Amino acid sequence: MAPPPSSEQPDAAAPGAGAISRVLIVMAMEKEAMPLVNKFKLVEAPARESIFPKGAPWTRFYGIYKDLHLDLVMPGKDAVFGVDSVGTVSAALVTYASIQALKPDLIINAGTAGGFKAKGASVKDVFLASDVAFHDRRIPIPVFDMYGIGARKTFAAPNILNELNFKLGKLSTGDSLDMSPQDEEAILSNDATIKDMEGAAVAYVADMFSTPAIFVKAVTDIVDGDKPTAEEFLNNLISVTAALDVAVTKLVDFICGKRISDL
Amino acid sequence: MAPPPSSEQPDAAAPGAGAISRVLIVMAMEKEAMPLVNKFKLVEAPARESIFPKGAPWTRFYGIYKDLHLDLVMPGKDAVFGVDSVGTVSAALVTYASIQALKPDLIINAGTAGGFKAKGASVKDVFLASDVAFHDRRIPIPVFDMYGIGARKTFAAPNILNELNFKLGKLSTGDSLDMSPQDEEAILSNDATIKDMEGAAVAYVADMFSTPAIFVKAVTDIVDGDKPTAEEFLNNLISVTAALDVAVTKLVDFICGKRISDL
Repeated sequence: MAPPPSSEQPDAAAPGAGAISRVLIVMAMEKEAMPLVNKFKLVEAPARESIFPKGAPWTRFYGIYKDLHLDLVMPGKDAVFGVDSVGTVSAALVTYASIQALKPDLIINAGTAGGFKAKGASVKDVFLASDVAFHDRRIPIPVFDMYGIGARKTFAAPNILNELNFKLGKLSTGDSLDMSPQDEEAILSNDATIKDMEGAAVAYVADMFSTPAIFVKAVTDIVDGDKPTAEEFLNNLISVTAALDVAVTKLVDFICGKRISDL
Repeated sequence: MAPPPSSEQPDAAAPGAGAISRVLIVMAMEKEAMPLVNKFKLVEAPARESIFPKGAPWTRFYGIYKDLHLDLVMPGKDAVFGVDSVGTVSAALVTYASIQALKPDLIINAGTAGGFKAKGASVKDVFLASDVAFHDRRIPIPVFDMYGIGARKTFAAPNILNELNFKLGKLSTGDSLDMSPQDEEAILSNDATIKDMEGAAVAYVADMFSTPAIFVKAVTDIVDGDKPTAEEFLNNLISVTAALDVAVTKLVDFICGKRISDL
Protein backbone atom coordinates (compact mmCIF):
# COMPACT_ATOMS: atom_id res chain seq x y z
CA MET A 1 0.00 0.00 0.00
CA ALA A 2 1.32 3.43 -0.93
CA PRO A 3 2.36 5.68 1.93
CA PRO A 4 0.02 8.51 2.79
CA PRO A 5 0.81 11.96 1.41
CA SER A 6 3.81 13.72 2.85
CA SER A 7 1.71 15.86 5.14
CA GLU A 8 1.18 12.70 7.21
CA GLN A 9 4.91 12.05 7.56
CA PRO A 10 6.41 14.75 9.73
CA ASP A 11 9.41 12.65 10.69
CA ALA A 12 10.30 11.89 7.07
CA ALA A 13 10.26 15.56 6.12
CA ALA A 14 11.96 17.03 9.15
CA PRO A 15 14.33 18.71 9.25
CA GLY A 16 14.48 18.20 5.50
CA ALA A 17 14.82 20.81 2.82
CA GLY A 18 12.14 23.44 3.02
CA ALA A 19 10.69 22.22 6.29
CA ILE A 20 9.44 24.94 8.60
CA SER A 21 12.17 25.60 11.13
CA ARG A 22 11.34 28.75 13.06
CA VAL A 23 7.85 29.60 14.31
CA LEU A 24 7.05 32.90 16.00
CA ILE A 25 4.03 32.88 18.30
CA VAL A 26 2.68 36.37 19.04
CA MET A 27 0.33 36.67 22.02
CA ALA A 28 -0.97 39.74 23.80
CA MET A 29 -1.69 38.55 27.33
CA GLU A 30 0.53 36.73 29.81
CA LYS A 31 -2.41 34.70 31.17
CA GLU A 32 -3.08 33.38 27.67
CA ALA A 33 0.56 32.62 26.99
CA MET A 34 2.00 31.04 30.15
CA PRO A 35 0.31 27.63 29.76
CA LEU A 36 1.90 27.40 26.30
CA VAL A 37 5.26 28.51 27.64
CA ASN A 38 5.05 25.61 30.10
CA LYS A 39 3.67 23.13 27.59
CA PHE A 40 6.49 23.81 25.11
CA LYS A 41 9.07 24.09 27.93
CA LEU A 42 10.16 27.52 26.72
CA VAL A 43 12.52 29.67 28.76
CA GLU A 44 12.51 33.43 29.08
CA ALA A 45 15.28 35.26 27.26
CA PRO A 46 17.28 37.17 29.90
CA ALA A 47 17.27 40.95 29.57
CA ARG A 48 21.02 41.09 28.92
CA GLU A 49 20.60 38.88 25.85
CA SER A 50 17.38 40.45 24.66
CA ILE A 51 16.77 40.75 20.94
CA PHE A 52 14.73 43.85 21.83
CA PRO A 53 16.22 47.26 22.64
CA LYS A 54 16.46 48.52 26.19
CA GLY A 55 13.26 50.35 27.11
CA ALA A 56 10.89 48.09 25.18
CA PRO A 57 8.68 46.08 27.55
CA TRP A 58 8.40 43.21 25.07
CA THR A 59 9.17 39.72 26.36
CA ARG A 60 10.36 36.59 24.59
CA PHE A 61 10.32 32.94 25.55
CA TYR A 62 12.09 30.42 23.35
CA GLY A 63 13.07 26.80 23.01
CA ILE A 64 13.23 23.74 20.78
CA TYR A 65 9.99 21.78 20.52
CA LYS A 66 10.30 18.62 18.44
CA ASP A 67 11.92 19.89 15.24
CA LEU A 68 10.94 23.52 15.64
CA HIS A 69 12.63 26.61 17.00
CA LEU A 70 9.77 28.25 18.87
CA ASP A 71 9.74 31.88 19.93
CA LEU A 72 6.78 33.17 21.89
CA VAL A 73 6.74 36.94 22.17
CA MET A 74 4.44 39.29 24.02
CA PRO A 75 4.20 43.09 24.15
CA GLY A 76 4.80 42.80 27.88
CA LYS A 77 3.68 44.91 30.79
CA ASP A 78 3.08 48.61 30.28
CA ALA A 79 5.81 50.61 31.99
CA VAL A 80 3.33 52.98 33.61
CA PHE A 81 0.27 50.85 34.34
CA GLY A 82 1.73 47.36 34.70
CA VAL A 83 -0.96 45.67 32.58
CA ASP A 84 -0.43 43.66 29.41
CA SER A 85 0.22 46.03 26.52
CA VAL A 86 -2.78 44.93 24.48
CA GLY A 87 -3.92 46.53 21.24
CA THR A 88 -2.69 47.22 17.74
CA VAL A 89 0.25 49.56 18.32
CA SER A 90 2.07 47.26 20.75
CA ALA A 91 1.27 44.14 18.74
CA ALA A 92 2.59 45.74 15.55
CA LEU A 93 5.79 46.87 17.27
CA VAL A 94 6.66 43.54 18.88
CA THR A 95 5.80 41.67 15.68
CA TYR A 96 8.02 44.00 13.67
CA ALA A 97 10.98 43.76 16.04
CA SER A 98 10.61 39.97 16.24
CA ILE A 99 10.46 39.49 12.47
CA GLN A 100 13.60 41.59 12.05
CA ALA A 101 15.54 39.74 14.75
CA LEU A 102 14.30 36.19 14.26
CA LYS A 103 13.31 35.89 10.57
CA PRO A 104 10.56 33.37 11.34
CA ASP A 105 9.25 31.03 8.64
CA LEU A 106 5.75 31.31 10.06
CA ILE A 107 3.86 33.48 12.56
CA ILE A 108 1.04 32.24 14.75
CA ASN A 109 -0.99 35.02 16.35
CA ALA A 110 -2.93 33.30 19.11
CA GLY A 111 -5.34 34.88 21.52
CA THR A 112 -8.83 35.32 22.78
CA ALA A 113 -11.62 37.06 20.90
CA GLY A 114 -15.21 38.08 21.07
CA GLY A 115 -17.56 36.02 18.90
CA PHE A 116 -20.85 36.77 17.15
CA LYS A 117 -23.50 34.14 17.77
CA ALA A 118 -25.39 35.43 14.74
CA LYS A 119 -22.42 34.22 12.69
CA GLY A 120 -22.21 30.87 14.47
CA ALA A 121 -19.69 31.54 17.25
CA SER A 122 -19.99 30.07 20.76
CA VAL A 123 -17.82 30.50 23.85
CA LYS A 124 -14.72 28.20 23.69
CA ASP A 125 -14.89 27.86 19.90
CA VAL A 126 -11.47 28.11 18.31
CA PHE A 127 -11.34 29.91 14.98
CA LEU A 128 -8.79 30.33 12.26
CA ALA A 129 -9.18 33.73 10.60
CA SER A 130 -9.64 33.57 6.84
CA ASP A 131 -9.52 37.36 6.59
CA VAL A 132 -8.65 40.27 8.83
CA ALA A 133 -9.70 43.92 8.80
CA PHE A 134 -9.90 46.91 11.13
CA HIS A 135 -13.23 48.25 12.38
CA ASP A 136 -12.16 51.46 14.11
CA ARG A 137 -10.16 53.27 11.43
CA ARG A 138 -12.83 55.32 9.66
CA ILE A 139 -11.30 57.69 7.09
CA PRO A 140 -14.13 58.93 4.86
CA ILE A 141 -11.92 60.01 1.95
CA PRO A 142 -11.84 57.82 -1.17
CA VAL A 143 -9.11 55.14 -1.07
CA PHE A 144 -8.09 56.22 2.44
CA ASP A 145 -11.35 54.59 3.54
CA MET A 146 -10.18 51.23 2.20
CA TYR A 147 -6.68 51.72 3.61
CA GLY A 148 -8.23 52.33 7.03
CA ILE A 149 -10.27 49.13 6.88
CA GLY A 150 -7.18 47.33 5.63
CA ALA A 151 -9.01 44.10 4.74
CA ARG A 152 -6.70 41.30 3.72
CA LYS A 153 -6.91 37.57 3.24
CA THR A 154 -4.66 35.64 5.56
CA PHE A 155 -2.27 32.87 4.51
CA ALA A 156 -4.46 29.97 3.32
CA ALA A 157 -3.85 26.75 5.25
CA PRO A 158 -6.36 24.25 3.83
CA ASN A 159 -4.66 21.19 5.32
CA ILE A 160 -4.73 22.67 8.80
CA LEU A 161 -8.43 23.38 8.37
CA ASN A 162 -9.13 19.89 7.03
CA GLU A 163 -7.16 17.97 9.60
CA LEU A 164 -7.60 19.99 12.78
CA ASN A 165 -10.96 20.84 14.18
CA PHE A 166 -11.01 24.62 13.80
CA LYS A 167 -13.84 26.81 12.65
CA LEU A 168 -13.13 29.33 9.90
CA GLY A 169 -14.27 32.94 10.09
CA LYS A 170 -13.37 36.52 9.36
CA LEU A 171 -11.65 38.51 12.10
CA SER A 172 -12.17 42.21 12.77
CA THR A 173 -9.69 44.14 14.91
CA GLY A 174 -10.02 47.30 16.97
CA ASP A 175 -8.40 48.90 19.99
CA SER A 176 -11.48 48.77 22.20
CA LEU A 177 -12.77 45.81 24.19
CA ASP A 178 -16.29 47.15 23.92
CA MET A 179 -18.17 47.86 20.70
CA SER A 180 -19.62 51.24 19.74
CA PRO A 181 -22.44 51.48 17.17
CA GLN A 182 -19.85 52.67 14.61
CA ASP A 183 -17.65 49.66 15.42
CA GLU A 184 -20.64 47.36 15.05
CA GLU A 185 -21.50 48.79 11.65
CA ALA A 186 -17.91 48.30 10.47
CA ILE A 187 -17.72 44.78 11.91
CA LEU A 188 -20.90 43.86 10.05
CA SER A 189 -19.45 45.41 6.90
CA ASN A 190 -16.29 43.35 7.47
CA ASP A 191 -18.55 40.25 7.66
CA ALA A 192 -16.66 39.24 10.81
CA THR A 193 -17.44 36.28 13.04
CA ILE A 194 -14.81 37.17 15.62
CA LYS A 195 -13.44 40.42 17.03
CA ASP A 196 -10.06 40.98 18.65
CA MET A 197 -7.62 43.77 19.49
CA GLU A 198 -4.44 42.74 17.64
CA GLY A 199 -4.95 40.44 14.64
CA ALA A 200 -5.15 42.91 11.75
CA ALA A 201 -2.10 44.77 13.07
CA VAL A 202 -0.05 41.57 13.24
CA ALA A 203 -1.25 40.70 9.72
CA TYR A 204 -0.27 44.14 8.44
CA VAL A 205 3.31 43.76 9.66
CA ALA A 206 3.59 40.10 8.63
CA ASP A 207 2.43 40.96 5.10
CA MET A 208 4.90 43.84 4.92
CA PHE A 209 7.70 41.31 5.21
CA SER A 210 5.95 38.49 3.32
CA THR A 211 5.88 36.26 6.39
CA PRO A 212 2.99 33.76 6.37
CA ALA A 213 0.78 34.24 9.43
CA ILE A 214 -1.97 32.13 10.96
CA PHE A 215 -4.53 33.59 13.34
CA VAL A 216 -5.92 31.29 16.05
CA LYS A 217 -8.60 32.91 18.17
CA ALA A 218 -10.62 31.34 20.98
CA VAL A 219 -13.96 32.90 21.88
CA THR A 220 -14.20 34.28 25.44
CA ASP A 221 -17.42 36.24 25.07
CA ILE A 222 -20.42 36.61 22.82
CA VAL A 223 -20.52 40.18 21.58
CA ASP A 224 -24.15 39.99 20.41
CA GLY A 225 -25.23 38.18 23.59
CA ASP A 226 -26.79 39.50 26.76
CA LYS A 227 -23.77 39.58 29.09
CA PRO A 228 -21.46 42.59 29.48
CA THR A 229 -18.31 41.94 27.46
CA ALA A 230 -15.75 42.81 30.14
CA GLU A 231 -17.45 40.59 32.74
CA GLU A 232 -17.90 37.65 30.37
CA PHE A 233 -14.33 38.04 29.11
CA LEU A 234 -12.85 37.92 32.61
CA ASN A 235 -15.11 35.05 33.74
CA ASN A 236 -14.17 32.88 30.78
CA LEU A 237 -10.54 33.86 30.33
CA ILE A 238 -9.02 30.90 32.21
CA SER A 239 -11.18 28.16 30.72
CA VAL A 240 -11.03 29.55 27.19
CA THR A 241 -7.28 29.96 27.47
CA ALA A 242 -7.11 26.21 28.13
CA ALA A 243 -9.01 25.58 24.89
CA LEU A 244 -6.74 28.00 23.06
CA ASP A 245 -3.65 26.29 24.35
CA VAL A 246 -4.91 22.85 23.28
CA ALA A 247 -5.58 24.28 19.83
CA VAL A 248 -2.16 25.94 19.50
CA THR A 249 -0.44 22.74 20.65
CA LYS A 250 -2.32 20.73 18.01
CA LEU A 251 -1.40 23.34 15.43
CA VAL A 252 2.30 23.34 16.34
CA ASP A 253 2.34 19.52 16.37
CA PHE A 254 0.78 19.59 12.90
CA ILE A 255 3.36 22.08 11.63
CA CYS A 256 6.34 19.99 12.80
CA GLY A 257 8.26 18.66 9.81
CA LYS A 258 5.98 20.31 7.28
CA ARG A 259 6.78 22.83 4.60
CA ILE A 260 4.81 26.05 4.28
CA SER A 261 3.18 24.60 1.16
CA ASP A 262 2.00 21.59 3.19
CA LEU A 263 -0.17 23.73 5.43
CA MET B 1 26.39 95.63 27.46
CA ALA B 2 26.23 92.01 28.49
CA PRO B 3 25.40 89.56 25.78
CA PRO B 4 21.90 88.11 25.80
CA PRO B 5 21.40 84.70 27.41
CA SER B 6 22.83 81.73 25.58
CA SER B 7 19.49 80.84 24.06
CA GLU B 8 20.01 83.89 21.81
CA GLN B 9 23.45 82.70 20.68
CA PRO B 10 23.03 79.61 18.56
CA ASP B 11 26.43 80.06 16.94
CA ALA B 12 28.24 80.32 20.25
CA ALA B 13 26.72 77.11 21.58
CA ALA B 14 26.86 74.98 18.46
CA PRO B 15 28.14 72.42 18.00
CA GLY B 16 29.31 72.66 21.60
CA ALA B 17 29.02 70.08 24.32
CA GLY B 18 25.45 68.92 24.81
CA ALA B 19 24.05 70.81 21.85
CA ILE B 20 21.27 69.05 20.02
CA SER B 21 22.78 67.38 17.01
CA ARG B 22 20.26 65.03 15.48
CA VAL B 23 16.57 65.89 15.05
CA LEU B 24 14.05 63.38 13.74
CA ILE B 25 10.94 64.87 12.15
CA VAL B 26 8.05 62.38 11.90
CA MET B 27 5.24 63.31 9.52
CA ALA B 28 2.35 61.23 8.22
CA MET B 29 1.48 62.79 4.86
CA GLU B 30 3.68 63.56 1.88
CA LYS B 31 1.73 66.77 1.09
CA GLU B 32 2.51 68.04 4.58
CA ALA B 33 6.15 67.08 4.39
CA MET B 34 7.42 68.02 0.93
CA PRO B 35 7.55 71.79 1.50
CA LEU B 36 9.78 71.13 4.52
CA VAL B 37 11.93 68.70 2.56
CA ASN B 38 12.50 71.50 0.05
CA LYS B 39 12.95 74.22 2.66
CA PHE B 40 15.63 72.23 4.50
CA LYS B 41 17.15 70.96 1.22
CA LEU B 42 16.83 67.35 2.33
CA VAL B 43 17.48 64.49 -0.06
CA GLU B 44 15.72 61.15 -0.17
CA ALA B 45 17.72 58.19 1.08
CA PRO B 46 18.04 55.74 -1.81
CA ALA B 47 16.42 52.34 -1.30
CA ARG B 48 19.75 50.51 -1.45
CA GLU B 49 21.04 52.52 1.51
CA SER B 50 17.80 52.48 3.46
CA ILE B 51 17.94 52.30 7.22
CA PHE B 52 14.60 50.48 6.95
CA PRO B 53 14.22 46.82 6.02
CA LYS B 54 13.08 45.77 2.56
CA GLY B 55 9.29 45.60 2.47
CA ALA B 56 8.66 48.57 4.73
CA PRO B 57 7.11 51.48 2.80
CA TRP B 58 8.69 54.03 5.12
CA THR B 59 10.62 56.87 3.54
CA ARG B 60 13.42 59.05 4.83
CA PHE B 61 14.81 62.39 3.73
CA TYR B 62 17.95 63.74 5.35
CA GLY B 63 20.48 66.51 5.28
CA ILE B 64 22.44 69.06 7.25
CA TYR B 65 20.57 72.24 8.11
CA LYS B 66 22.69 74.82 9.91
CA ASP B 67 24.22 72.81 12.78
CA LEU B 68 21.67 70.02 12.77
CA HIS B 69 21.47 66.60 11.23
CA LEU B 70 17.85 66.48 10.11
CA ASP B 71 16.01 63.30 9.25
CA LEU B 72 12.42 63.56 8.08
CA VAL B 73 10.65 60.22 8.00
CA MET B 74 7.20 59.23 6.81
CA PRO B 75 5.27 55.97 6.94
CA GLY B 76 5.12 56.15 3.13
CA LYS B 77 2.57 54.90 0.67
CA ASP B 78 0.52 51.84 1.48
CA ALA B 79 1.64 48.92 -0.68
CA VAL B 80 -1.92 47.99 -1.59
CA PHE B 81 -3.79 51.29 -1.74
CA GLY B 82 -1.06 53.79 -2.59
CA VAL B 83 -2.18 56.38 -0.03
CA ASP B 84 -0.13 57.78 2.84
CA SER B 85 0.00 55.22 5.64
CA VAL B 86 -1.70 57.44 8.21
CA GLY B 87 -2.69 56.34 11.71
CA THR B 88 -1.17 55.01 14.89
CA VAL B 89 0.22 51.64 13.80
CA SER B 90 2.31 53.01 10.92
CA ALA B 91 3.42 56.05 12.90
CA ALA B 92 4.55 53.87 15.80
CA LEU B 93 6.46 51.53 13.50
CA VAL B 94 8.35 54.20 11.57
CA THR B 95 9.11 56.09 14.78
CA TYR B 96 10.45 52.92 16.38
CA ALA B 97 12.62 51.94 13.41
CA SER B 98 13.94 55.50 13.10
CA ILE B 99 14.83 55.80 16.79
CA GLN B 100 16.72 52.51 16.62
CA ALA B 101 18.65 53.43 13.49
CA LEU B 102 19.26 57.14 14.05
CA LYS B 103 19.33 57.65 17.84
CA PRO B 104 17.90 61.17 17.56
CA ASP B 105 18.38 63.70 20.35
CA LEU B 106 14.90 65.08 19.73
CA ILE B 107 11.77 64.11 17.82
CA ILE B 108 9.38 66.59 16.22
CA ASN B 109 6.03 65.09 15.25
CA ALA B 110 4.51 67.63 12.89
CA GLY B 111 1.19 67.41 11.13
CA THR B 112 -2.32 68.63 10.69
CA ALA B 113 -5.09 68.21 13.21
CA GLY B 114 -8.72 68.91 13.87
CA GLY B 115 -9.38 71.67 16.38
CA PHE B 116 -12.18 72.36 18.83
CA LYS B 117 -13.46 75.92 18.68
CA ALA B 118 -15.03 75.45 22.12
CA LYS B 119 -11.45 75.12 23.40
CA GLY B 120 -10.16 78.11 21.44
CA ALA B 121 -8.89 76.55 18.21
CA SER B 122 -9.23 78.17 14.78
CA VAL B 123 -8.20 76.99 11.32
CA LYS B 124 -4.46 77.65 10.70
CA ASP B 125 -3.65 77.84 14.40
CA VAL B 126 -0.43 76.02 15.24
CA PHE B 127 -0.39 74.19 18.54
CA LEU B 128 2.23 72.53 20.68
CA ALA B 129 0.73 69.58 22.54
CA SER B 130 1.22 69.74 26.29
CA ASP B 131 -0.31 66.28 26.72
CA VAL B 132 -1.32 63.40 24.50
CA ALA B 133 -3.86 60.62 24.94
CA PHE B 134 -5.87 58.15 22.88
CA HIS B 135 -9.64 58.49 22.45
CA ASP B 136 -10.50 55.22 20.68
CA ARG B 137 -9.00 52.59 22.96
CA ARG B 138 -11.83 51.84 25.37
CA ILE B 139 -11.00 48.91 27.65
CA PRO B 140 -13.52 48.96 30.52
CA ILE B 141 -11.46 46.85 32.93
CA PRO B 142 -9.76 48.59 35.86
CA VAL B 143 -6.21 49.79 35.03
CA PHE B 144 -6.56 48.55 31.43
CA ASP B 145 -8.90 51.51 30.97
CA MET B 146 -6.10 53.93 31.86
CA TYR B 147 -3.57 52.02 29.76
CA GLY B 148 -5.94 52.34 26.79
CA ILE B 149 -6.25 56.10 27.21
CA GLY B 150 -2.49 56.27 27.66
CA ALA B 151 -2.47 59.92 28.75
CA ARG B 152 1.01 61.36 29.12
CA LYS B 153 2.59 64.76 29.43
CA THR B 154 4.91 65.61 26.58
CA PHE B 155 8.43 66.97 26.96
CA ALA B 156 8.07 70.46 28.43
CA ALA B 157 9.63 73.17 26.26
CA PRO B 158 8.87 76.45 28.05
CA ASN B 159 11.39 78.51 26.08
CA ILE B 160 9.91 77.39 22.78
CA LEU B 161 6.48 78.39 24.04
CA ASN B 162 7.70 81.75 25.32
CA GLU B 163 9.72 82.74 22.28
CA LEU B 164 7.73 81.28 19.40
CA ASN B 165 4.14 82.08 18.79
CA PHE B 166 2.50 78.71 19.36
CA LYS B 167 -0.68 77.95 21.21
CA LEU B 168 -0.59 75.24 23.86
CA GLY B 169 -3.23 72.52 24.10
CA LYS B 170 -3.88 68.89 24.81
CA LEU B 171 -3.86 66.48 21.87
CA SER B 172 -6.10 63.44 21.53
CA THR B 173 -5.27 60.72 19.00
CA GLY B 174 -7.40 58.14 17.24
CA ASP B 175 -7.36 56.15 14.01
CA SER B 176 -10.48 57.75 12.52
CA LEU B 177 -10.70 61.06 10.71
CA ASP B 178 -14.31 61.42 11.78
CA MET B 179 -15.56 61.45 15.38
CA SER B 180 -18.12 59.03 16.82
CA PRO B 181 -20.11 59.95 19.93
CA GLN B 182 -17.83 57.59 21.92
CA ASP B 183 -14.76 59.34 20.50
CA GLU B 184 -16.26 62.72 21.40
CA GLU B 185 -16.90 61.63 24.98
CA ALA B 186 -13.32 60.42 25.32
CA ILE B 187 -11.88 63.56 23.70
CA LEU B 188 -13.84 65.69 26.17
CA SER B 189 -12.60 63.51 28.98
CA ASN B 190 -9.04 63.97 27.64
CA ASP B 191 -9.68 67.75 27.77
CA ALA B 192 -8.27 67.98 24.25
CA THR B 193 -8.11 71.10 22.09
CA ILE B 194 -6.78 69.26 19.05
CA LYS B 195 -7.34 65.81 17.54
CA ASP B 196 -5.01 63.90 15.26
CA MET B 197 -4.29 60.36 14.07
CA GLU B 198 -0.68 59.78 15.14
CA GLY B 199 0.55 61.90 18.05
CA ALA B 200 -0.09 59.64 21.03
CA ALA B 201 1.44 56.69 19.18
CA VAL B 202 4.61 58.65 18.41
CA ALA B 203 4.71 59.78 22.05
CA TYR B 204 4.31 56.20 23.27
CA VAL B 205 7.33 55.01 21.29
CA ALA B 206 9.43 58.10 22.05
CA ASP B 207 8.79 57.67 25.78
CA MET B 208 9.69 53.98 25.57
CA PHE B 209 13.20 55.02 24.56
CA SER B 210 13.35 58.23 26.62
CA THR B 211 13.63 60.42 23.55
CA PRO B 212 12.21 63.94 24.05
CA ALA B 213 9.42 64.64 21.57
CA ILE B 214 7.63 67.82 20.57
CA PHE B 215 4.23 67.77 18.86
CA VAL B 216 3.46 70.59 16.42
CA LYS B 217 -0.04 70.44 15.00
CA ALA B 218 -1.71 72.89 12.61
CA VAL B 219 -5.50 73.02 12.55
CA THR B 220 -7.10 72.08 9.20
CA ASP B 221 -10.68 71.72 10.35
CA ILE B 222 -12.97 72.63 13.21
CA VAL B 223 -14.36 69.43 14.64
CA ASP B 224 -17.19 71.13 16.52
CA GLY B 225 -18.01 73.39 13.57
CA ASP B 226 -20.66 73.07 10.89
CA LYS B 227 -18.55 71.78 7.98
CA PRO B 228 -17.99 68.08 7.26
CA THR B 229 -14.50 67.15 8.51
CA ALA B 230 -13.25 65.37 5.38
CA GLU B 231 -14.30 68.24 3.10
CA GLU B 232 -12.87 70.96 5.35
CA PHE B 233 -9.67 68.95 5.82
CA LEU B 234 -9.09 68.59 2.09
CA ASN B 235 -10.01 72.22 1.32
CA ASN B 236 -7.59 73.58 3.90
CA LEU B 237 -4.78 71.06 3.61
CA ILE B 238 -2.56 73.12 1.31
CA SER B 239 -2.88 76.47 3.10
CA VAL B 240 -2.62 74.98 6.57
CA THR B 241 0.40 72.97 5.49
CA ALA B 242 2.07 76.26 4.63
CA ALA B 243 1.40 77.51 8.17
CA LEU B 244 2.69 74.25 9.58
CA ASP B 245 5.87 74.49 7.56
CA VAL B 246 6.53 78.05 8.71
CA ALA B 247 6.06 76.89 12.29
CA VAL B 248 8.37 73.89 11.96
CA THR B 249 11.04 76.03 10.30
CA LYS B 250 10.86 78.53 13.17
CA LEU B 251 11.07 75.66 15.61
CA VAL B 252 14.10 74.07 13.93
CA ASP B 253 15.82 77.47 13.72
CA PHE B 254 15.19 77.92 17.42
CA ILE B 255 16.59 74.48 18.24
CA CYS B 256 19.86 75.07 16.35
CA GLY B 257 22.76 75.26 18.78
CA LYS B 258 20.57 74.68 21.83
CA ARG B 259 20.73 71.93 24.38
CA ILE B 260 17.66 69.90 25.30
CA SER B 261 17.58 71.77 28.61
CA ASP B 262 17.45 75.08 26.72
CA LEU B 263 14.12 74.24 25.14
